[in-house]
This record gives sequence, C-alpha cells and structure tokens, in this order.
Amino acid sequence: MHIFYTPDINLETYILSEEESKHCIKVLRLDSGSLLYLVDGNGGFYDAIIEDPHPKRTKLKILGKVENFGKRNHYLHIAIAPTKNIERVEWFLEKATEIGIDEITPIICDRSERKEIKTERLNKVITSAIKQSIKAYHPKLNEAVRFNDLITQNANTQKFIAHCMDGGKVTIKELLIPNSNYLIVIGPEGDFTLEEVEAAVNNNFIPVSLGDSRLRTETAALEACFEINFLNR
Amino acid sequence: MHIFYTPDINLETYILSEEESKHCIKVLRLDSGSLLYLVDGNGGFYDAIIEDPHPKRTKLKILGKVENFGKRNHYLHIAIAPTKNIERVEWFLEKATEIGIDEITPIICDRSERKEIKTERLNKVITSAIKQSIKAYHPKLNEAVRFNDLITQNANTQKFIAHCMDGGKVTIKELLIPNSNYLIVIGPEGDFTLEEVEAAVNNNFIPVSLGDSRLRTETAALEACFEINFLNR
Repeated sequence: MHIFYTPDINLETYILSEEESKHCIKVLRLDSGSLLYLVDGNGGFYDAIIEDPHPKRTKLKILGKVENFGKRNHYLHIAIAPTKNIERVEWFLEKATEIGIDEITPIICDRSERKEIKTERLNKVITSAIKQSIKAYHPKLNEAVRFNDLITQNANTQKFIAHCMDGGKVTIKELLIPNSNYLIVIGPEGDFTLEEVEAAVNNNFIPVSLGDSRLRTETAALEACFEINFLNR
Repeated sequence: MHIFYTPDINLETYILSEEESKHCIKVLRLDSGSLLYLVDGNGGFYDAIIEDPHPKRTKLKILGKVENFGKRNHYLHIAIAPTKNIERVEWFLEKATEIGIDEITPIICDRSERKEIKTERLNKVITSAIKQSIKAYHPKLNEAVRFNDLITQNANTQKFIAHCMDGGKVTIKELLIPNSNYLIVIGPEGDFTLEEVEAAVNNNFIPVSLGDSRLRTETAALEACFEINFLNR
C-alpha cells in the first residue's frame, strides 16, 4: 500500500514533487495505471492512479476521496520540553503519531538543557509516521515557546501537568472528560521547578501522576498519549 | 542518585567491577563516604557507602537492604519478533523496562526478516534502563526461539496474540484477569501468517486488538505493555 502526503491537493489531477516522483518511479518502480493513496493531512484520503510515470513530475489522476478519514473523538495537545538528545524527541513524535496525537508544542523550561529546536526535521518524522501508519490527519508541530507563555494561553481544554515532585497528584483516569480537548505539559530531564508547577496550577493545570515508575521525559509524554487515547476508546 | 547494578551481591561489603569502579570514581568523582544505591535485579535494593574509592576495585560497605523493592502485582511476558532495524528492539526494551515488564522472548516467525539476535547488547540496554528508572528487578531476556516452540510451551498464563488480520478480535481490557500472569505475542513487520495465528489459537492464545491504528512492531509491543500495566493499576 503506497501512501503519499499531498497537503496541497485540490484538483482532479496531482503532480508529485520531484522527490516523491523519484521515490514513486525509481524506488517503488510503479508505472502507468498503478494504484496509490494520498493523504492531505487534513482528513482527506484519496485513491489515485498514475497517469504519467514521469520520474521528476509524476502525474496522478484522483479517483475518489474520503473526508474525515480516521477522525478522532478527542483532541490531544502535548507540550514537551525537548530532551538534550534530539533522537528521543524524534522517537516520541513517531510513536505519538502512530498512537494518536493532534498537536505538539516544544516548551523551554527553567531547567531545559536544550533551548532551541529545529522543527523542519521533526516535521519530516511526523510526515513519515502518518504515511507509515495510514493517517489522513497530520499532527501540528508548533515552534518552541517558553513555558510561561504556553501556560498563560487561554484554551478551552482540560489542562494537566506531569511533574516528579511529591504530593497532591491524581491520575488522568480519575479526571478525564471523554471526547474532549486535552493539554498536558511534560517537563525537562531535571523536572519542572517548584515555581513552574505553582504557575501552572495558578493557570488551572492539574498535577497528575503517570504511575509509580520514574519515566524519562519522552516516555512520560508517550505514557500520557497512551492513557488519553486508551481512555477515549 | 547513583545506582549500580550488582547481581552477585551477597555480603556486607561489595567490590565494584573495574568498569563500574572507573565510572564511580573517575566519571561521577565520588569519594570515601559517598552514598550510593545498589540493585541486585532480584528485588533487592541496597544503601551503601564507599569505603575505599579505588578507581579499579571500589570497595563499598552495605548499610541496609530493602527486599521486594517495587514488586509488581502481575507478571508480563512479551514475545516479539525482532525488527529488521535492531534499534527499534532496543527502544522497545528501554521503554518497556521503564513502564514495567518481567520477561521478553525474541521469536522467529515465518515472515521474520531478522532470524537471529544477540542478546548481550540488548541486556545492557535493559540494565541501563533499570538503573535509570530505579528498578530492583531486572527483566529476563531469553534467547530467541522459533514461534512454534514458544506457543506450544505450557504456561499457566493468560495468552494473547496481536495480529493485523481482520476478524474476531477483542480488547485486552475485556479479557484481562487482574494481578495475573500474561504472555502476549507480537509479530514481525509483515505480520504473522494465517497458519501461525491458527496454531496460536489452537494453543489457547486469544487474538486481541490494540486499537484502530496500524502500529509498527515495537509500538504494538509497547502498547500491549502499557495496556497491561495500566489495567493492573
């Protein structure tokens, strides 16, 4: 099953980019009449056939479209402090895309060792994962923001903060309103500071526990992603 | 918090291996009287201090021991067909160790692209993950076995098979007996064959669904690990 990501699709024909054309014709060795599938990242899933197998500008004819393909019953936004080793963020993005996520915001915290992040490469990881796991919605990756800017944004969503300090935490299972919107913030390798947790609580974030294990940043983020998807099934 | 893995501990003193001694004295720069923690992989968690900070054979004095540290209320055995790219197996082992797993068996299936696996390096990944996530039990990694040999073993455990074919699947949530033993088998990148699924069913494995997403092998295994831990909380 050959899937291509075509966010700019809008007509009855479509010309694959030079890179995708090469992949289609030279690598996959598809030819005129071959069936393939397109996803537009916005819920559109298309059947198409190759009309002109040009190795640099392959022309496709769209046969049909399904809208809202695999539409999810909730909206999950995870804000995560990027790890020092960027591969751990990439792994999180791939896995979260497979399991189900809608929006990701890298956050810069007081104890963040990594203060900047290049989203272009990370977006490629997400695109590759939607093709691999046959998803028609492309999770939205925001540019990095400071923690305090994120938590003071108004949003009509359930807001959770996962930190490692003791005291007063409940589980997501106890709080979750099904079929709703969720924002969960995950701290850096050295955890949030007490001031950050207090600021989040003052902005209506609820401290939650993700179980008894001490989890790495990216594992905690994926655990949250698992839990919220699982509880919405 | 400095954790060392000391499976052969049995006295009131302990000599760290040359590699661990070097790490302790040269990298962490710990000295006489420094407090550190040892886990024996079998549930034992120890406080110790450095008695002799020798860079090749650091001598520790054991101060106290807690048994059954972090003992889990169930036993989870995942049998997984190793992925072509071994890094994906390593990621799974690290994450499953953090989240909670007791035993892992690599299985060789009809469609396995990878027919052999070196467990030594994989065991190091597990050891590193137990130290990082402060676990006193070391998950057991078995040598690879053929799928048919695994499924015909008698075991007093709930047995599940996660495959990608249509038809007749239920969720783990519907079936799971809490605080029990579980064995779940996860197929290779090209899925199990129909004959393998039938053979598993004939050996009392129940086909289960891990949700609507098409998951990679290692993501499916981690999803199963997450579900079984979550349902046992």
